[in-house]
Amino acid sequence: MVMERCDVLAGFSEEPGHVTRRFATPALRLASDALAEWMRAAGMDVRRDNIGNLIGRYEANRPGARTLLLGSHLDSVRDAGRYDGPLGVLAALACVERLHEHGRRLPFAIEVLAFADEEGVRYRTAYLGSQVVAGCFDLAQLALADADGVTMDEAIRAFGGDPSNLAGDACSDDDLLGYCEVHIEQGPVLEARGYPVGVVTAIAGQSRFAITFTGVAGHAGTVPMELRHDALVAAAEFIGWANTYARREPGLVATIGQIDAYPNVSNVIPGRVTMSLDVRHQDDEQRFRAIERLHACAAKIAAVSGIEVEWDLVQEHHSVPCSAELTQRLMQAIASLGHSVWELPSGAGHDGVMLSRLTPIAMLFVRCKSGISHNPAEAVAEEDVAVAIEVLGHFLELLG
Amino acid sequence: MVMERCDVLAGFSEEPGHVTRRFATPALRLASDALAEWMRAAGMDVRRDNIGNLIGRYEANRPGARTLLLGSHLDSVRDAGRYDGPLGVLAALACVERLHEHGRRLPFAIEVLAFADEEGVRYRTAYLGSQVVAGCFDLAQLALADADGVTMDEAIRAFGGDPSNLAGDACSDDDLLGYCEVHIEQGPVLEARGYPVGVVTAIAGQSRFAITFTGVAGHAGTVPMELRHDALVAAAEFIGWANTYARREPGLVATIGQIDAYPNVSNVIPGRVTMSLDVRHQDDEQRFRAIERLHACAAKIAAVSGIEVEWDLVQEHHSVPCSAELTQRLMQAIASLGHSVWELPSGAGHDGVMLSRLTPIAMLFVRCKSGISHNPAEAVAEEDVAVAIEVLGHFLELLG
Repeated sequence: MVMERCDVLAGFSEEPGHVTRRFATPALRLASDALAEWMRAAGMDVRRDNIGNLIGRYEANRPGARTLLLGSHLDSVRDAGRYDGPLGVLAALACVERLHEHGRRLPFAIEVLAFADEEGVRYRTAYLGSQVVAGCFDLAQLALADADGVTMDEAIRAFGGDPSNLAGDACSDDDLLGYCEVHIEQGPVLEARGYPVGVVTAIAGQSRFAITFTGVAGHAGTVPMELRHDALVAAAEFIGWANTYARREPGLVATIGQIDAYPNVSNVIPGRVTMSLDVRHQDDEQRFRAIERLHACAAKIAAVSGIEVEWDLVQEHHSVPCSAELTQRLMQAIASLGHSVWELPSGAGHDGVMLSRLTPIAMLFVRCKSGISHNPAEAVAEEDVAVAIEVLGHFLELLG
Repeated sequence: MVMERCDVLAGFSEEPGHVTRRFATPALRLASDALAEWMRAAGMDVRRDNIGNLIGRYEANRPGARTLLLGSHLDSVRDAGRYDGPLGVLAALACVERLHEHGRRLPFAIEVLAFADEEGVRYRTAYLGSQVVAGCFDLAQLALADADGVTMDEAIRAFGGDPSNLAGDACSDDDLLGYCEVHIEQGPVLEARGYPVGVVTAIAGQSRFAITFTGVAGHAGTVPMELRHDALVAAAEFIGWANTYARREPGLVATIGQIDAYPNVSNVIPGRVTMSLDVRHQDDEQRFRAIERLHACAAKIAAVSGIEVEWDLVQEHHSVPCSAELTQRLMQAIASLGHSVWELPSGAGHDGVMLSRLTPIAMLFVRCKSGISHNPAEAVAEEDVAVAIEVLGHFLELLG
């Protein structure tokens, strides 16, 4: 059922034949409306908040009970896959549906959240939906314009929301049990290890740097090797060192994704190289220590080669640890269903980053094919999705 | 005098305030006309051939004598310096002028050649002038069009030449003594070693390759180091290896000047990297051996990292050795004037590449500031130019 519904939602797109469902678009509205129907059929009270999040509530078996938040996002990147986001919403819905079918209610209420924006493609932001729920939406964002000049304020109104009431949509429930999200891994670890699902330990902290090596450009034929100050040779040494170092440090990833040499012609020794460095670790202390080592290495390479190096921090956010207690319950659920428990950090950001400001979070990753995501080739196995739903259902029982 | 004349020629430009003097332009014509005046004043018979080369002939002291060719090119790159080319023509002229002032003639005739095109900027060719003299001009080039759509055929006619007579301009003198060219080094070796001039051993052979490393793109956060096939890490290892290897092999230069990573964004592991490799050595055997080693290294790095490598030859030309006999005379001239003799290969191409098909060649390099060329900052010291003229003059005496 979840697989079929992922296919149905994939049909609601801005671009025929592709999955593109950005914030506050008619495509998102159609997906949200379809979801609302399914939620109601599962016995939930459904409302849409001012940013466009769809929230389905399944009441507890007694008044005054606490509330557990489940969910994920409904928006997508351009030419996306069908599972990044919707799978988490639909897995949560499937659990509620099963309770409803058996006429059961738990000693806590469940709210399934379908966030209106996580990817942030339309306004080059991120987490608009979960920002509102977590009560940390920055109103300055309302003035941002999309590629067609439509401001966020206008887009929210066109979608049926009132931007001036966004603050009122913050979750005011001070008796939350937590937030648990099912999501495709978007990485190759579970596939490589052979596990259908894995428990997320933390959403990794990240630092992004812009590094510039400045040497001396020169003629590729007339400057002998020993008189060169080749910026690309220095950059290459750093890339090699960063790779070797990160391989040695468990849980650390360091990536040079972008590199540009100047003047970038075959017969001129590169005088300057700019590149990015992306460093992530679930432990902030270890990330900071790694950055220190990497920075020292860049400085040393530059000094030895008679080259200047500039090192600028572009972006940084801290690690968000998952709740030990909720995660323990997830692991218990996995083990009691006869599966091996595999823990891994999330190298990518998720709505839990924002929700963690409100309540403890937990995440369950589902194995995906070749780690491919943000791509039409994104794929998950139906059996793995079934395991995820089983685990999440059992997790609810354990909490109850 | 030579320095002042370099300044005068620099004034003949297509762009005010910059030195830009491409093939068959009015700027080249003005420079050529000024040079013709100076040649006539030095007792030379002057003619312009159909491609636009200016040739000044200073007769021998007896009939039936052999002929020595001297010279360089009058054209320039865009926004050039003032010495790359003109210095060689004017140094040759200065020697003839001195003979003429003293009413002396040598037992051989001297022809000073001012080539109309060496840089090949206008038609993305090279050596048009010396190709004609050497009798190896490919007539297919006449159909090439410049950026304004003017064909080479039209440009030659507008400059006063007849393209159908180019073959007749090949040097038919079968009793040539050789060709000797003075040129700025365009590299930093003489400055680093402290020599005003140096003798060129050979014009280096060159091979240019396009190399592509193809790995697997992936998310910079979600793919652990040990599961990556990072094309840039492989490329960086190769760059480092090539640099270390070339430093160990005397006379070898290996340059990666161009590099492009895909998709080249900070949060994606590079799935593909394309780069250039430029390899030069004055000894073709050594160049071939180096290429074999470099290729084997790229293949090994790729195999170890689970990455594909493609290796394509883009361009190749062989080394052009300078004449041992003429070079010996140049070294004799340098030594007898009390200077140290320093031999070095030319990593850049020169008109001698074409002239070598006609007659033995020799080249004298003049120290230039910081090795800078093809740049308005190109500079030579007047004292060094004086040494070059002294050496060339003494070389003529020794030949005589």
